Amino acid sequence: MHVDWIAVDWGTSNLRAWAIRDGTAVAEAASGKGMGVLAPDAFEAALLEVIEPWLGMGPMRVVASGMVGARQGWREAPYATVPCAPTETGAVRPDAADPRLDVTILPGLAQDKPADVMRGEETQIAGYLAGDPGFDGIVCLPGTHTKWVHVSAGEVVSFRTFMTGELFALLSTGSVLRHSVGGGWDDTAFAEAVDDAMGRPEAIAARLFALRAETLLSDLGTGTATARLSGLLIGAELAAARAYWLGQRVVLVGETRQVSHYARALASLGAASETADATQATLAGLAAAHARMQEPS
Amino acid sequence: MHVDWIAVDWGTSNLRAWAIRDGTAVAEAASGKGMGVLAPDAFEAALLEVIEPWLGMGPMRVVASGMVGARQGWREAPYATVPCAPTETGAVRPDAADPRLDVTILPGLAQDKPADVMRGEETQIAGYLAGDPGFDGIVCLPGTHTKWVHVSAGEVVSFRTFMTGELFALLSTGSVLRHSVGGGWDDTAFAEAVDDAMGRPEAIAARLFALRAETLLSDLGTGTATARLSGLLIGAELAAARAYWLGQRVVLVGETRQVSHYARALASLGAASETADATQATLAGLAAAHARMQEPS
Repeated sequence: MHVDWIAVDWGTSNLRAWAIRDGTAVAEAASGKGMGVLAPDAFEAALLEVIEPWLGMGPMRVVASGMVGARQGWREAPYATVPCAPTETGAVRPDAADPRLDVTILPGLAQDKPADVMRGEETQIAGYLAGDPGFDGIVCLPGTHTKWVHVSAGEVVSFRTFMTGELFALLSTGSVLRHSVGGGWDDTAFAEAVDDAMGRPEAIAARLFALRAETLLSDLGTGTATARLSGLLIGAELAAARAYWLGQRVVLVGETRQVSHYARALASLGAASETADATQATLAGLAAAHARMQEPS
Repeated sequence: MHVDWIAVDWGTSNLRAWAIRDGTAVAEAASGKGMGVLAPDAFEAALLEVIEPWLGMGPMRVVASGMVGARQGWREAPYATVPCAPTETGAVRPDAADPRLDVTILPGLAQDKPADVMRGEETQIAGYLAGDPGFDGIVCLPGTHTKWVHVSAGEVVSFRTFMTGELFALLSTGSVLRHSVGGGWDDTAFAEAVDDAMGRPEAIAARLFALRAETLLSDLGTGTATARLSGLLIGAELAAARAYWLGQRVVLVGETRQVSHYARALASLGAASETADATQATLAGLAAAHARMQEPS
């Protein structure tokens, strides 16, 4: 199979790769060998395991983004500091023993005040901008660490990260609330919880325990509890991120289910939002970086 | 050894027992066999393991409180509903095969609106009240699930539970912040974080991730990060619990270190607080319940 180059999204827990020919992904492969489980000298072998079938005789360009460029990654790609265009400067090339590998790792973004960082999302933002270069507004990327990103004139102006997704995961699997949440979903409970949390966001630690108490006292259903937990956390986030979404054009980029929760919560507050596919944004961002490398310097 | 009766504090993760003679604890024993690891038919053996050396020929009265009375415990002691005096009604006597055991389990407290529950803390409140029967004010019991309890005329009027302690544990061991926190403590950082969180409690999910970002960008020390994490969570709780502590007499009952954090945070907001020893409160509460059982009915 002829392949022009290989796009890689390499996060903490996963490695995903796409073989690109004529601007199109013609094959896809993945493994669980994320940055979190790899020692620095194990990255090359982990990459080869996934992409070897696509390699030819000569060097293959591989463009990667995400935690692979962290200090604990293959090779550190120091953060670019905002305001700046995402992924345009600061890429690094890790050493590879295999001569068929010509790897470039894209840098993340950092913000001085308030202190904040991202790795991987900047590539999705660049990918979204590739399709809408004049975009002026907010890109919100829901996930483990949800990012709200102000983009203008092709640059990331500022951003803020919320640990909402990680809190949801910890609370629903590791806390006393694991006995309350479970299968099912309740749209009304979600909307009410968003509203509650927007109104009195500081009360969230008490409202969380109330889920447990209602399970014990009034057989609260698992679907209602799950939706309410999600709504409380997203509502508190929206209260804090108000400056990002109020009166702004908002594009949500992420996994379908998470994006739909944010869209619904924003709609309940009278704010419209658009959505963009996360994988497409990642691929477009890696492709834009690859295209720049082909330009004569 | 002659023993009059045995006091037992039996929570989710631990079982602690005291041999009481002439109103004084003359021996103490403990095990890790909390309610969380025991099937209903395993409680009697777990209790005997700990207290058997103290048993004589005849039946021994054992008074227990905590999660041992939960639905998944030895025998359910249904919640008494506030407003009511703690531990005065609703005790149950589980079946025991060993004729030397005469066990009583004290009930927890429930509140209808907002839904809330406690098991174990009501005994500490009863114990505090035994030494100060005319108390009118707030008992705050910091812990995994911190309780703020309004007490008046010998009754619990209302209460509210915050998952602050559990959030701290989850975030510092299970989240990305585990790379930021660690040894050490910073009083100034704690006080500033309490203040920050009181001022804008809704921003907490963003401030939490900033700890991670500052570790990466400016080598934030583990002691500062730990103190700030604790301060943010306690500050948000105090913002939501303001009606409980503002202008009220507050007594803190709990583990020394946690109590000192709450006392310091309250002091930084201009609120005085007193402290009471948690173990003494538990023993006094169990003793008060035992004394009532001795009264002619």
